[in-house]
Amino acid sequence: MEPIVYLNGGFVPHREARISADDRGFLFGDGVYEVIRAVDGALFEAGAHARRMAAGLQALRIGSLEGGAHALLGVAERLLRENALLEGEATVYLQVTRGAAPRRHTFPAPSTPPTVYVSATRFQPPAELQEHGAAAITQADVRWGRCNVKSTNLLPNILAKQLAAEAGAFEAILVRDGVVTEGASTSVFGVSRGELRTHPLTPHILPGITRAVVLELAAARGLRVDETPLRGAELGRLDEIFLVGTTTDLMPVVVLDGTPVGGGSPGPVTRALQQGYRARFHGAARSLLLST
Amino acid sequence: MEPIVYLNGGFVPHREARISADDRGFLFGDGVYEVIRAVDGALFEAGAHARRMAAGLQALRIGSLEGGAHALLGVAERLLRENALLEGEATVYLQVTRGAAPRRHTFPAPSTPPTVYVSATRFQPPAELQEHGAAAITQADVRWGRCNVKSTNLLPNILAKQLAAEAGAFEAILVRDGVVTEGASTSVFGVSRGELRTHPLTPHILPGITRAVVLELAAARGLRVDETPLRGAELGRLDEIFLVGTTTDLMPVVVLDGTPVGGGSPGPVTRALQQGYRARFHGAARSLLLST
Repeated sequence: MEPIVYLNGGFVPHREARISADDRGFLFGDGVYEVIRAVDGALFEAGAHARRMAAGLQALRIGSLEGGAHALLGVAERLLRENALLEGEATVYLQVTRGAAPRRHTFPAPSTPPTVYVSATRFQPPAELQEHGAAAITQADVRWGRCNVKSTNLLPNILAKQLAAEAGAFEAILVRDGVVTEGASTSVFGVSRGELRTHPLTPHILPGITRAVVLELAAARGLRVDETPLRGAELGRLDEIFLVGTTTDLMPVVVLDGTPVGGGSPGPVTRALQQGYRARFHGAARSLLLST
Repeated sequence: MEPIVYLNGGFVPHREARISADDRGFLFGDGVYEVIRAVDGALFEAGAHARRMAAGLQALRIGSLEGGAHALLGVAERLLRENALLEGEATVYLQVTRGAAPRRHTFPAPSTPPTVYVSATRFQPPAELQEHGAAAITQADVRWGRCNVKSTNLLPNILAKQLAAEAGAFEAILVRDGVVTEGASTSVFGVSRGELRTHPLTPHILPGITRAVVLELAAARGLRVDETPLRGAELGRLDEIFLVGTTTDLMPVVVLDGTPVGGGSPGPVTRALQQGYRARFHGAARSLLLST
């Protein structure tokens, strides 16, 4: 079955979703995006994703999105229905760009409508890696200074991810000026003597939605969290490392740059948070379904 | 007349040039581009542009472009003909992305054809500003660490250019860690006691083709060139500042952050290089035409 996607107000077969070559998303990467998980038709943390997209649109001054980012959640739900994704797992991809206009760096006329693209796809979580743990490598963080905006300027991320894949690893953990910021597409947590470490919310990292959920779970369990950034040199001394993200959930890192992390298998703090996260993830989906 | 553009092997009316929503140029900014000037149908410094595009494709490991970047020069010339741009000034825009594939960070299958888009447009150089000089502002350089790759990850550039425009300025001069790197879409030169200053070729700047021509002209005139990076704090003490680029040519900066530069009008070194550049630019076009 040809998937149905949403483009600029219409629901169309995927192959008909064509973007103008003048689109500023194509020419400049001038846009923001989100990926949202869905379980049995219910979007997980949908409000948080919409708020982050709204903040990104505001940061980039893409102002004329009718109904705002929250209006796209209805589109996302309809795509889940149209594509028979009301059972099981799926992801929804949402992208908004500054629209199509003759190419010049400065913003186009304010009347230029943004380009809005939404698609929904069957998703299979990386369950085996989540169970046994993954490998990661470290790499220099050469991204720009506003990584808190979830923009489609993703070239450094894809290059880092590709090098990780070629090294047989799941993720590249990025280090900027000696400091661990985050992964190419995940947030990074360390565990040292039972305490969590992760980078604070600054323009050098994305305000991860899974990161926020994990911090809530940690607080509920009375785990101490230290947001003093990890130094790259500290990574080798951590008891546990794990990655979190929308399509990653909680992923133990058991090998870093070829060397085992802690005992070389997923540690107890990672496991406890994984379980808490799963319960919340599936519980949220269930409670949403019960309320509708 | 509807312009004719080139997309993936075909010459098509501009409005029919539509990109897949799965294009990695749209999703990730995963591509490179060039802008080439043409005078009376002759491309200026075409070989240098093609070599830089080839270097960018190699840096990003976009490998399967048939005929390589140089083959696109024939496309560019045909578009000048098809669009009746064989007289007067025009620009050609060329973009190559890693192609369309289901969205994931890692590279798609090697068989994925790159997306190739080329367009040609009438161009009017900013002659009045070149004559009287332009205003510029300084701004923090928040771009990534590989600005030597002319990629379409241009979000920091467009945001800087937009702020410049809103300040009534032509360009934003970018300062990274106290050092003047380049403009949002130009290379930056300073003049101090008759000596040129500009940033050396490092990953923090684009290897500008106009920059290289200006350095040749300076050498031919016996001007000394110092590629010790300018400090932001030095800008106010320079005798002259000018910007160079493919669509900018040589642009005197006569006001920086609201303060006059040198005497507040284009200086003698800028003027001499401007004249030399014009002679070369139009001479190159003429000699190419004579040879065909």
